[in-house]
Amino acid sequence: MRNAFCKKPLWEVNDRLVRVAQGKEPADTVIRHATLVSVTTHELLEDADIAIASGRIAYLGIAGHTAKHCIGEKTVVIDASGLYATPGLIDSHIHIESAMIGPSEYARAVVPHGTTAILADPHEVANVRGLEGVTSMWEDAARTPLKTMLTTPSCVPAVLGVEDTGSSIDAAQVEKTMSWPETYGLGEMMNFPGILNNEPNATNEVRETLKADRRVTGHYSVVESDRGLAAYIAAGISSCHESIGIDDVVAKLRMGMWVQLRYGSAWHNLPVYLPPLLETGIDLRHCLLCSDDNHPNTLVSDGHMDRILREAVRLGCHPITALQMATINCAEYLGIGEDMGSITPGKCADLVLMRDLTNFEAVQVYIDGVLVAQNGKPCFEVEPFAWPDYMTNTMNLGCEISADTFRIPAPANKRADASATCKVRTITVDPGQTITRNTICEAPIVDGSLCADHASDLLKLCVFDRHHGAEGTHAFGFVHGFGIHGALAQTVAHDAHNLLVMGDNDEDMALAARTLVECGGGEVAVADGKVLALVELPICGLMSTLPAEQVAAQVQKVEQAWVQMGNTMPSPFMTMGVMSLACVPELRLTNRGYVNCVTFTMEDLIAE
Amino acid sequence: MRNAFCKKPLWEVNDRLVRVAQGKEPADTVIRHATLVSVTTHELLEDADIAIASGRIAYLGIAGHTAKHCIGEKTVVIDASGLYATPGLIDSHIHIESAMIGPSEYARAVVPHGTTAILADPHEVANVRGLEGVTSMWEDAARTPLKTMLTTPSCVPAVLGVEDTGSSIDAAQVEKTMSWPETYGLGEMMNFPGILNNEPNATNEVRETLKADRRVTGHYSVVESDRGLAAYIAAGISSCHESIGIDDVVAKLRMGMWVQLRYGSAWHNLPVYLPPLLETGIDLRHCLLCSDDNHPNTLVSDGHMDRILREAVRLGCHPITALQMATINCAEYLGIGEDMGSITPGKCADLVLMRDLTNFEAVQVYIDGVLVAQNGKPCFEVEPFAWPDYMTNTMNLGCEISADTFRIPAPANKRADASATCKVRTITVDPGQTITRNTICEAPIVDGSLCADHASDLLKLCVFDRHHGAEGTHAFGFVHGFGIHGALAQTVAHDAHNLLVMGDNDEDMALAARTLVECGGGEVAVADGKVLALVELPICGLMSTLPAEQVAAQVQKVEQAWVQMGNTMPSPFMTMGVMSLACVPELRLTNRGYVNCVTFTMEDLIAE
Repeated sequence: MRNAFCKKPLWEVNDRLVRVAQGKEPADTVIRHATLVSVTTHELLEDADIAIASGRIAYLGIAGHTAKHCIGEKTVVIDASGLYATPGLIDSHIHIESAMIGPSEYARAVVPHGTTAILADPHEVANVRGLEGVTSMWEDAARTPLKTMLTTPSCVPAVLGVEDTGSSIDAAQVEKTMSWPETYGLGEMMNFPGILNNEPNATNEVRETLKADRRVTGHYSVVESDRGLAAYIAAGISSCHESIGIDDVVAKLRMGMWVQLRYGSAWHNLPVYLPPLLETGIDLRHCLLCSDDNHPNTLVSDGHMDRILREAVRLGCHPITALQMATINCAEYLGIGEDMGSITPGKCADLVLMRDLTNFEAVQVYIDGVLVAQNGKPCFEVEPFAWPDYMTNTMNLGCEISADTFRIPAPANKRADASATCKVRTITVDPGQTITRNTICEAPIVDGSLCADHASDLLKLCVFDRHHGAEGTHAFGFVHGFGIHGALAQTVAHDAHNLLVMGDNDEDMALAARTLVECGGGEVAVADGKVLALVELPICGLMSTLPAEQVAAQVQKVEQAWVQMGNTMPSPFMTMGVMSLACVPELRLTNRGYVNCVTFTMEDLIAE
Repeated sequence: MRNAFCKKPLWEVNDRLVRVAQGKEPADTVIRHATLVSVTTHELLEDADIAIASGRIAYLGIAGHTAKHCIGEKTVVIDASGLYATPGLIDSHIHIESAMIGPSEYARAVVPHGTTAILADPHEVANVRGLEGVTSMWEDAARTPLKTMLTTPSCVPAVLGVEDTGSSIDAAQVEKTMSWPETYGLGEMMNFPGILNNEPNATNEVRETLKADRRVTGHYSVVESDRGLAAYIAAGISSCHESIGIDDVVAKLRMGMWVQLRYGSAWHNLPVYLPPLLETGIDLRHCLLCSDDNHPNTLVSDGHMDRILREAVRLGCHPITALQMATINCAEYLGIGEDMGSITPGKCADLVLMRDLTNFEAVQVYIDGVLVAQNGKPCFEVEPFAWPDYMTNTMNLGCEISADTFRIPAPANKRADASATCKVRTITVDPGQTITRNTICEAPIVDGSLCADHASDLLKLCVFDRHHGAEGTHAFGFVHGFGIHGALAQTVAHDAHNLLVMGDNDEDMALAARTLVECGGGEVAVADGKVLALVELPICGLMSTLPAEQVAAQVQKVEQAWVQMGNTMPSPFMTMGVMSLACVPELRLTNRGYVNCVTFTMEDLIAE
């Protein structure tokens, strides 16, 4: 595939590279005395010189040769004595939205950690604003040096017929995006039932991607690595970051898949897969590293691909092998190894000078031969992006919200009985589990309405369609397990990113909801009529306009509020955010009501 | 890059593959109980089943799973117990013409040895008939199952201004070919001086290939692996089969090249490079195997890629590593790993059932799921190709040939002296050496003409332009070192493929030349007025219309004739064939006269 992310394509500058390599013309930059990590040969090449011209590598001085002949009066000479030179790091699967910051802020957050390219799947924004939203994100991304490669979201909406999203993407739209230069493939094809059943839209999305000679990335998370997996791969899906265990990883590699070993903020597969994988001794040429999700705190405190490399080495992986999985393997998977993934002549000068191969601390980062980060700080400034109105004006609810909005009338026959309760279907969450339980609880009835009950940890849940204005609906449910007093609301709620509100009283719920409607979305904690903490995410209700550090600090305040409100589980915000994720068992709530995610049928709230 | 060589592209058949993998529809063929060579993981997978549908692999039954569910009434079931299943073998660089047979006969010769794809450079035919000749060859090739991938010859003619060839190819023509589906790259860029000096045509040929996202294959044979090599690679040339030694191989790999380890009929680099390469322990992911040239005898007696694999294993290479170099590495180099190079779901069912991994004897060969060879014999018949007239009518000399044609008038001042001799510039050949020496010998003068002299092993040499009819020229020279009585002629003579005649008397030379003019080209041995042996090569004067076995037998007869005529050197035909190769030092003869291949100037015959 052609690589669109070069300052200049090779054919425009190769004559100059040829002259520079031979000392007939000076280089722009010469890096001297580095220990070069050769990912093509799996070697360290000591005292290596690298000459860069027109954004590409013109010459390597190795095996005793130097690049002195490439140095002219204006050549910038960098002494990299004591440092390692590695190819720029590539994240092979990431959702920018998971960091709650926009693409240009994302670039500023990850480039100082040595990341020079990411394969991003804007699944979340697409659910809110479709391809128009994707285009807008990539306009922001294009203002930074980070090579932000697009995979077109394949499953928008994620599950059909059970909720209302802001937009959708079908095979015809996928086809359209495949002619965009920034598109490198199709985003994770989560609809494996659709693929296995020859469902036309899913199949055609894959076909349009294959026709364009781009990669179909996968998401196959079934405890089955035989017929279904083979069928899924035979359909043309060539990579996967969702494996169940080591047997699944090995089966995928044997069946020709490129396997992404994930180590994100929430999902830590790397420690599970990597040690037994190394144990097998099999060829890791088709293994890639990826983060999938990165919360702002992780980016700010721990880093990005450098963090994953550290973990891989800590788990016993040879550092060069780990670097191959973060560089050349990814480039070769995407078919752009001619341009990226190694420090060799002709390639884009995307490289990192690192302190060591244990911590992978980036001292300098170059993209297309330009110094883009130094000592943990980006060297590029980006003006705040002028987000179009359709990206920042996404809270389109059909009703004014007051405490009364959250009133759930009790069944007619019980309204008069002051001491009555009512059996209600309830989502029960267990700490640290994504899977919920489909349970029945007793809700008290007050003034003819079903109420939450703090004493028995029964909270009211409400999901508002925030995309369709007056035509939008909302639905109620109950949830057990969060143990809070007050209310929490968020618009990140996967995968429709509707407005999700949870609380033990209607007043706080109303304040929480109104707060997010007013600020354009985000997450908020409210108790006793007061806003305890707020993260404003005005871009599609998913991303902040602030820098990563400030968003991380705000998120931390919300996390503290959760504790203050009585919650003791790990990652409660994320657990809450998947209450509406209609593709994971057992019970979820969308704006249309309860979805039984085992039978994929709707369920009633009243369970008597 | 899109792979044009599939029976059906994946996007046309993936729905069926999905059904077959799950047992919803029967497979076309199921291979059972094979030991599968997994080149993606570098493993042997025992008792593996392979289900094939619509020319592609639908399902792999491994790790205890079987493909029984894919078997229907009409499914062909193959019991491969005791056999290894490997991906089809790919020759990463080959000149079909070297085997003196046409493309379809070539397919019949190599497919039974497990070869399912070749990357062919029709450099020789292009020098005779240009792109029209290439097109004609590929029309013949297309009638066979062998995936005959084209690299457009880059250096036609090989050297400018010193000889007359039948045709030429420039950058504009290269551009044209890059839109052909059968084109996978640019053929070996031998003009490294042109690249290193920014010569426009050479540079533009590379550029047009890069623009089309195809591979520029190389030929960098200088004892220099520093600045020049880096410049050559930075120009965009990504592979090379012409290395000088192990240091050169390692330098190329470190600089990002894909290195072809050659083991052809004439050039045996593999035994030189492979053992020290294995010794280094570096990653061999970018190493490929290739033959470059294959004489008919080699194909018939020893095989093709199987022969190279045998040699690699004999040299200490792990058989799976050797197979990777002959399968997946090549597919990934070409950017068609999504379609070829491994036995995994979705890929073209190009595979070989082998007896063992020592001899690599192919028991059955499948291409696109069709059994194409069995027990050393092809399963496909090909009608003789109706070669167009311009391909078979290529002996277009400007003169009638008689003994008198070969008369070289002595300098005017010496014609009258019956005992005089004349100093003449002479090519001196040493047994087994490609490089010749530029020497001076004494030629006798008889009847006012310079003569050959059997006693002092001084033979007369003549090159006729066979392409330009009345406008064509011919030139004389002398050669020392062949030691024959009689005459030999050939039209293979590299790189212009003109008519090259050598002998110790004008009558035999005339008979040899006339014989080839009459039969359309080839090689012939004549002594004492009799044709001792003849290989007719009527297709461009380069290729026979007969099967490989018959051509091999004919070539053997010519080789016997050489011995009979007094020659004792190895490969005399090949040594003779490069007498006109104007790019190799020191002295060569073309139809324009002597070329000093050190200074690249013309030299006079008379050296006094």
